[in-house]
Amino acid sequence: MSAAPNPGKFLYMLEPVDSLIHAGWIIPVLPAGVVLPQHSLAIWQGEIVGIVPTSEAQTRFSARREFDLPHQALIPGLINLHTHAAMSLMRGLADDLPLMTWLNDHIWPAEGRHVSAEFVFDGTLLACAEMLRGGVTCMNDMYFFPEAAARASLQTGMRTSFGIVVLEFPTAYAADADDYLHKGLKARDEFKDEPLLSFAIAPHAPYTVTDRTFAKIVTLSEQLDCGIHMHIHETEDEIQQSLKEYGVRPLARLKNLGLLGPNLIAVHAVHLNAVEIADLAHQGCHVAHCPASNLKLASGFAPVDKLLQAGANVGIGTDGAASNNRLDVMGEMRLAALLAKGVAGRADAVPAQTALAMATINAARALGIDKKIGSLEIGKCADIATIDMSKVETSPCFDVISQIVYAADREQVSHVWVDGELKVENGSLIDIDTQELLAKTAYWQNKLHPTQ
Amino acid sequence: MSAAPNPGKFLYMLEPVDSLIHAGWIIPVLPAGVVLPQHSLAIWQGEIVGIVPTSEAQTRFSARREFDLPHQALIPGLINLHTHAAMSLMRGLADDLPLMTWLNDHIWPAEGRHVSAEFVFDGTLLACAEMLRGGVTCMNDMYFFPEAAARASLQTGMRTSFGIVVLEFPTAYAADADDYLHKGLKARDEFKDEPLLSFAIAPHAPYTVTDRTFAKIVTLSEQLDCGIHMHIHETEDEIQQSLKEYGVRPLARLKNLGLLGPNLIAVHAVHLNAVEIADLAHQGCHVAHCPASNLKLASGFAPVDKLLQAGANVGIGTDGAASNNRLDVMGEMRLAALLAKGVAGRADAVPAQTALAMATINAARALGIDKKIGSLEIGKCADIATIDMSKVETSPCFDVISQIVYAADREQVSHVWVDGELKVENGSLIDIDTQELLAKTAYWQNKLHPTQ
Repeated sequence: MSAAPNPGKFLYMLEPVDSLIHAGWIIPVLPAGVVLPQHSLAIWQGEIVGIVPTSEAQTRFSARREFDLPHQALIPGLINLHTHAAMSLMRGLADDLPLMTWLNDHIWPAEGRHVSAEFVFDGTLLACAEMLRGGVTCMNDMYFFPEAAARASLQTGMRTSFGIVVLEFPTAYAADADDYLHKGLKARDEFKDEPLLSFAIAPHAPYTVTDRTFAKIVTLSEQLDCGIHMHIHETEDEIQQSLKEYGVRPLARLKNLGLLGPNLIAVHAVHLNAVEIADLAHQGCHVAHCPASNLKLASGFAPVDKLLQAGANVGIGTDGAASNNRLDVMGEMRLAALLAKGVAGRADAVPAQTALAMATINAARALGIDKKIGSLEIGKCADIATIDMSKVETSPCFDVISQIVYAADREQVSHVWVDGELKVENGSLIDIDTQELLAKTAYWQNKLHPTQ
Repeated sequence: MSAAPNPGKFLYMLEPVDSLIHAGWIIPVLPAGVVLPQHSLAIWQGEIVGIVPTSEAQTRFSARREFDLPHQALIPGLINLHTHAAMSLMRGLADDLPLMTWLNDHIWPAEGRHVSAEFVFDGTLLACAEMLRGGVTCMNDMYFFPEAAARASLQTGMRTSFGIVVLEFPTAYAADADDYLHKGLKARDEFKDEPLLSFAIAPHAPYTVTDRTFAKIVTLSEQLDCGIHMHIHETEDEIQQSLKEYGVRPLARLKNLGLLGPNLIAVHAVHLNAVEIADLAHQGCHVAHCPASNLKLASGFAPVDKLLQAGANVGIGTDGAASNNRLDVMGEMRLAALLAKGVAGRADAVPAQTALAMATINAARALGIDKKIGSLEIGKCADIATIDMSKVETSPCFDVISQIVYAADREQVSHVWVDGELKVENGSLIDIDTQELLAKTAYWQNKLHPTQ
């Protein structure tokens, strides 16, 4: 990242910046709980270079463009810590079905018939459009044809960690585990100089990947210093299956294989005993909590409060739109805060401030990019969402963080920046053609389900 | 309700109607699961007088006003089966606190200092504005100064069942149980000819009302043939307290007192054993399920799937905005569908169609007005919400009912009618001055919490 332009030797010389945002409130997330009323944020070359009281902003900065957002709260762009973006094209394809019927009779056959680079590109575009409008500036993606997902993500200007997906069984994308790794690493090479893209190795789950492949993944993760993004302990069934097949629970098997550590993002982590909670925390693993998906597929209730109490780093993900059916991190943040209270039996579990941290800085830590994003601090990338608090739905407003988490809606997101670039203005996507996107979506809807 | 004008003796004479709505889909809710694509709905004198394919509508009706809503789905206006509307002025006043701290240190003191007829009027206006915009056309309210709530509700043109609230202890509103009843019945007399208003007796809870008062309430409910709207089994604590004080659980005490029956709306009903579930179902009681509030206050997980399986009638409520913090029945419908799956451990529990019925026809049954509202059928009142399905967030759309419940947002509500009167057009309130409302809300915010 570039340094801010030096104010120079003249005492009253204004500092030139690209954008200056005058906000009703700035909520930096770090330090925790801080709310800065009537503050302004300055952006230069994609970077946050100033956060000052609005009354001082005009005497400090000269901006190419100013934004007067007196009713808006600025928060760090939200981070979706687990999704299958392209599955947005299967949103609502098969709801209200038992998990195995849903997978075996609907999702897997549809994927088998339709998933291609084109499908992934179009589905990822749709997902990025939805997420950007909802204040989500970064996602951790896991799906087939990650190079197509990366291209779509780049086109929208969203920040993405794409997953080098690994499975043992063949799909339209790859033949076997080595082929998945080979193709994913090729994609990584292709995009390694893109500042908005990072990558992780994404073995699907302990029950779909062999010990032999896991050994390769551990080596690769160490060599490339990259994260491992995997579904773990989503259902009770997979635990029983592992006990039968390996004599140990999946997490114990992963631990034996050397996978537990600060590189691991354990997605779902619904079924955990006390030892496993302590293990995840002590090993510095990260958890991607997906509350809506866990409910919708009846997977169970993740022990989020216990994980946080144990010191584990927990972020929030939407999962794919086929099991949610929204890619709405604001809604997921609210659900995570509410659900944790019910599960813990304590109304003070996961307060609003913690939920907001889960959707921002905690997720950035999990992705290993918390030096770049996850909070509004000088020197970090300008990934920002603004929320219009002037609506009937968020009035009165006694505590703006609380109101954002419990009362506000993603439709109140008015402006979004990624890396200093304006992506959403007054609730509208700037450089995505919504009509073209809807036409593409209609094309795929007809292909997937021609009878409707 | 008036009859539709007779088409007359001339075969091709058009039937004059007030409004004709051409919709992408009509979802009547009754019969269950039916979706009518490209249908039109005709309204005359507040009543639904026709539901026909759009291709036939122009040859059947001549309307004073037509609405072309090709991307919208029409559903019955949503019904909020339990709220304390005026508490919208305490939205977010004290979040993330244990229940008794919340009540004793924040809500009750604030109510003691501030609640008045003026507070209730203004708070109810705010609540009605939020609800109407979110497609909610009817609410079941319980709060102090119900005559002020009734006046506010009438001003907005929303349909309301107001509660004749009863407590033993004195408040700014009334001195003792007899005084509450006296004042409530006076309000009932004042408004008994208003077609949009109905009323129920609303004893706060078993733990705040004595046997002597319950005896009076049973007699009154029979004499006036009106509902009884009460918090029941919200927390485990109140059950333990009842066991100590009365030697029985609250529901058993209420049963002994003769309160269980088709007049009873049991709000929350979180902690129920198998006998109680069977009792509620067999006695024809209704349950107002409040999923967000039950999570936020850590009350527990209501056995909704079991209640429905047992044949109980379950509707959905938001509770007050101080413990939610939204009056968003669409959101609550989604949460109810998701949460029930998690609690039941079955992804097919409370499917989308059931959740939609809970928020419409089931609630109408609970209020005893299912002959008037709760579904889109000829002869019923034209209480209608329309949802714009053309957004990125609800694309693709394989199943419109599923998409409304799991993917759509109350911000997609575009038009709302109550009793045939247009209340929301293109997402904007027609006859509520939002700026004036926000100014009033700011006034109360400052009174309640002058430091912010």
